[in-house]
Amino acid sequence: MKENILLIGGGGHCKSVIDVIEQENKYNIIGIVDKKENIGQKVLGYKVIACDDDLEELHKKYKNAVISVGHIRSNAVRVELLKQLKKIGYILPLIISPLAYVSKHATLQEGTIVMHNALINAGASVGKNCIINSKALIEHDSIIEDNCHISTAAVVNGGVLVKKDTFFASNATAKESIIVDGFVKAGSVVK
Amino acid sequence: MKENILLIGGGGHCKSVIDVIEQENKYNIIGIVDKKENIGQKVLGYKVIACDDDLEELHKKYKNAVISVGHIRSNAVRVELLKQLKKIGYILPLIISPLAYVSKHATLQEGTIVMHNALINAGASVGKNCIINSKALIEHDSIIEDNCHISTAAVVNGGVLVKKDTFFASNATAKESIIVDGFVKAGSVVK
Amino acid sequence: MKENILLIGGGGHCKSVIDVIEQENKYNIIGIVDKKENIGQKVLGYKVIACDDDLEELHKKYKNAVISVGHIRSNAVRVELLKQLKKIGYILPLIISPLAYVSKHATLQEGTIVMHNALINAGASVGKNCIINSKALIEHDSIIEDNCHISTAAVVNGGVLVKKDTFFASNATAKESIIVDGFVKAGSVVK
Repeated sequence: MKENILLIGGGGHCKSVIDVIEQENKYNIIGIVDKKENIGQKVLGYKVIACDDDLEELHKKYKNAVISVGHIRSNAVRVELLKQLKKIGYILPLIISPLAYVSKHATLQEGTIVMHNALINAGASVGKNCIINSKALIEHDSIIEDNCHISTAAVVNGGVLVKKDTFFASNATAKESIIVDGFVKAGSVVK
Repeated sequence: MKENILLIGGGGHCKSVIDVIEQENKYNIIGIVDKKENIGQKVLGYKVIACDDDLEELHKKYKNAVISVGHIRSNAVRVELLKQLKKIGYILPLIISPLAYVSKHATLQEGTIVMHNALINAGASVGKNCIINSKALIEHDSIIEDNCHISTAAVVNGGVLVKKDTFFASNATAKESIIVDGFVKAGSVVK
Repeated sequence: MKENILLIGGGGHCKSVIDVIEQENKYNIIGIVDKKENIGQKVLGYKVIACDDDLEELHKKYKNAVISVGHIRSNAVRVELLKQLKKIGYILPLIISPLAYVSKHATLQEGTIVMHNALINAGASVGKNCIINSKALIEHDSIIEDNCHISTAAVVNGGVLVKKDTFFASNATAKESIIVDGFVKAGSVVK
């Protein structure tokens, strides 16, 4: 039987998250938590059922949550939500698209989501609360620290260390064995 | 039983189209329509059986056609062919590689082909007569209008509007929520 | 029953090679051949069992070998190893990740490895001792000559000729129908 899960955040990234969770077919989406004024609206057929103030009350019924707020430049909202959800007692499961490939020699932590067609290779490790977005590539031995967003089609080559809170933008490339920290522009090459 | 289909155009793109149709395994390729002087030649084992002048005659026997002419810079030939084929009464089926992923929350229209390893995410829509080429990524909520070519490994991020007739070249990137119109250079980043 | 295979080279690229061979599930990895001082060390659980001087002796027991040394800028070690291994009489099987797609209309030669999520399209041909790395795309009718490394997420468009010994770096793009020779920088576009 599928476990229930709440989605926290009802914007654009939430749609991609829904698609991954539907394809993974492990969780039953109960609804979305968003701003008070959005209650009653729908995202891909799922209702906004509550706002952030209701998270404690909701936890009496539901134990799993996924942060479906995106991270472009700032991850402040995601980091704050993680703290709040953990404090209440929510479980933030690791979500992996069945269309992604994660090596059995890689390790990933709670609250992280691996989107469609992403690839995490042998010896890599990914911390908490990360987005490994559609078609992103994390090569062998790379380390992605907590709260990072490796954006769509981005390429992190072998042995790279991506420091916590980094936004590694779409289709950017990190050459092997370097340290990346903070902000990487779309399409750029980091040496 | 598989339906019959004609391929219109016998160049390089045609080979990729053949590979997709063979893998999809829904259509039986009858042959290729190309220039008169190429009749009798073969592309990956399929014969050039007729030229454009024969399209009306061929339609008496065959109802499905796919435009297998490429689109680099100009899509004039593809647009003209679409008009001609529709006028005669051909059906231009939507072709999707089984190696691509198209979200059930995305919509696509006739005459469009989604090549191997392309990904079209939730909430996206793609118009008529488009090529979504190998490894291209169309993210959530993006709109690709008619007659576009989203080329190999190109990345259209969330909420982008790609206006009709656009050539979005190989490995280019469009940042989220922008409008793209006309011509995008290979490997470039559009903001 | 699975055949035995030796891995020649125990660095970072070796981990990706192990992941591919494990997923392919055709070969039983006997161990790794590396520098004398590394004998006894382990890579993803596989032991370094010998050094280059032992290759002749090992061949009495094992006939298959894969070169698991990487190729960044220089392929001198890989080329020298190929010569040495062939002289002794080793078979260097073509290795293809089950997560890659190789068109049945493409041809590949011995000693080449196609990593996870790579795509080799119809009419393409790849020579000996090449690395077609994770997420690389080789489009229709392209020719990759011997001893090349098409690196992670690199895009070789239709009808390109990549001359032997080329290092085509990560996420670079070659426009269609050109000749590429020698060294291509990460993220660059070759016209």
